[in-house]
Amino acid sequence: MALLGIDIGGTKIAFAIIDNNGDLPLKDIVTIDHRAGTDVGELITGGAQRLINEAESLGHRVKAIGLSVPGISRQSTGTVWAPNIPGWDDYPLLKEFKAIAGNTPVTIESDRACYISAEVWKGNARGCRNAVFIAVGTGIGAGIMVNGEILHGAHDIAGATGWMALSRTFDNRFKSCGSFEFYASGEGIARRTEELMHSEKEYIGILQEVSNRKLTTEDVFKAWKHGDKIAEIIIKQAIEYWGMAAANLVSLLNPEKIIFGGGVFGPAAELIPDILVEAEKWAQPISIKQVTFEPTALSGDAGVLGAAFLAMKKISGIKR
Amino acid sequence: MALLGIDIGGTKIAFAIIDNNGDLPLKDIVTIDHRAGTDVGELITGGAQRLINEAESLGHRVKAIGLSVPGISRQSTGTVWAPNIPGWDDYPLLKEFKAIAGNTPVTIESDRACYISAEVWKGNARGCRNAVFIAVGTGIGAGIMVNGEILHGAHDIAGATGWMALSRTFDNRFKSCGSFEFYASGEGIARRTEELMHSEKEYIGILQEVSNRKLTTEDVFKAWKHGDKIAEIIIKQAIEYWGMAAANLVSLLNPEKIIFGGGVFGPAAELIPDILVEAEKWAQPISIKQVTFEPTALSGDAGVLGAAFLAMKKISGIKR
Repeated sequence: MALLGIDIGGTKIAFAIIDNNGDLPLKDIVTIDHRAGTDVGELITGGAQRLINEAESLGHRVKAIGLSVPGISRQSTGTVWAPNIPGWDDYPLLKEFKAIAGNTPVTIESDRACYISAEVWKGNARGCRNAVFIAVGTGIGAGIMVNGEILHGAHDIAGATGWMALSRTFDNRFKSCGSFEFYASGEGIARRTEELMHSEKEYIGILQEVSNRKLTTEDVFKAWKHGDKIAEIIIKQAIEYWGMAAANLVSLLNPEKIIFGGGVFGPAAELIPDILVEAEKWAQPISIKQVTFEPTALSGDAGVLGAAFLAMKKISGIKR
Repeated sequence: MALLGIDIGGTKIAFAIIDNNGDLPLKDIVTIDHRAGTDVGELITGGAQRLINEAESLGHRVKAIGLSVPGISRQSTGTVWAPNIPGWDDYPLLKEFKAIAGNTPVTIESDRACYISAEVWKGNARGCRNAVFIAVGTGIGAGIMVNGEILHGAHDIAGATGWMALSRTFDNRFKSCGSFEFYASGEGIARRTEELMHSEKEYIGILQEVSNRKLTTEDVFKAWKHGDKIAEIIIKQAIEYWGMAAANLVSLLNPEKIIFGGGVFGPAAELIPDILVEAEKWAQPISIKQVTFEPTALSGDAGVLGAAFLAMKKISGIKR
């Protein structure tokens, strides 16, 4: 048996054939360039068809197809919302795929759902039935698995962790992104560092080296490594917020693992022990002892692996 | 078909036969008095046996038994932890029940799980697959239903909402109960009101009428109705915390309903529109439009109804 996992990103699409051992004997990547709407759809179905044929010629029969989308997969309609792909507000991806897939089952899930699934299958949450993937990149979201199933919510937008209310009282600047994301996302960290640099008139330091472009989270982490005062304030605050948010996930969901991933973890992975110390203050005291905090174990293959795992679960009725 | 629902409280035990229509043709209540350990177990199995026999003589054959426990039901061992019943730290309730139930399936769930189930079956969350019951009494907890199933977590202590971190920065007084519970539980509201009375030396008002006993939440609500300044501060703050906590449940779980119950809702039920206004500030903006906030619809029968519903689901494999 083989599976086809497809990871649709904002700029490129990765395809992989996954065999019985979870190995990836065939891979392909295509770039989206400036395509939109049905052109992107055709790019994906075409690439899928190509890889299915190639796999077949090598003796791998594709039994199920899983797709990871950077947005929302509407389970009831089979349509997807992907804000980075023009024309994909309510795009009929499942219908298009069924046209090429015939009787082969097709599963479409959000990238966050795929990330936690990949960790459960092959990563640092292996074998867990209750686990959360906190993805901290430009924004913040979470993939949540409970009772061995992806938590979709009533309308497929569960896991909007960036909106977690952590800092009373309300500030109008939370309006567009949520209070957690405001303080502790990649964008939030960079923006708050710039603000603090401008308000601290007497500041002299490494962050000033970046003057010809927008500050990034990497700059802030680099400055923090050099003992920069402003970076220290910002990172300390981010640790507090990450700890509070993780604590809330632990108290509410009583998971076995919290996995930290996304671009910021990355450099923030070494802070996970500090995040746990912060979370221990806040969380339900028994539940926090029953969980471990870990960085993501999977590099670029998480999307294709997770999508393939969810497709496989669907056909085999595996209750993990 | 009939079901036997049993609601184990801190001081009494309610038994009810629930028929096909969800009516309760037979009910019984026994008080625990000063019993402990196996004496309480025998009280429950004895009462159950009596009601099963009585039901049978009226032509109702009990097909499944559900029990609601005021604590934790450990699904893997069939044991329960109920802090108000001496000796029930890891009590083998399922084993005891199987001895009298024969082949009749027995389900044991936490009271919070039963409350949300009762609302889904017969109350204000009727037919929902994703809904939360926030129980605000002396403490705060939540019964959570996702994908039509009770969320237990890895070790059956999911829904520990009272521990939600809402108020940075950490205060050592949160240690024994969690920050949400500290501010917005029945006990928290009463304690904080007393503290504020003592710190506001010039306070003259209705709350002073209570001097010969401990202040209760009811006193605070009564004072608030009379426009008392201190009560207003405390209730306003509680609304903020209830709104933030509800917002977090909405952003994370994307549910169809949030049901407010427990002793405090009750008097706080009329504040639900204000709680929604607060939650709307914080929550994921699409998700908050897809949910409604409601008070509990069920009076004292929620425990027996919810336990019976979960027992019925188990035997019929109903996916609601």
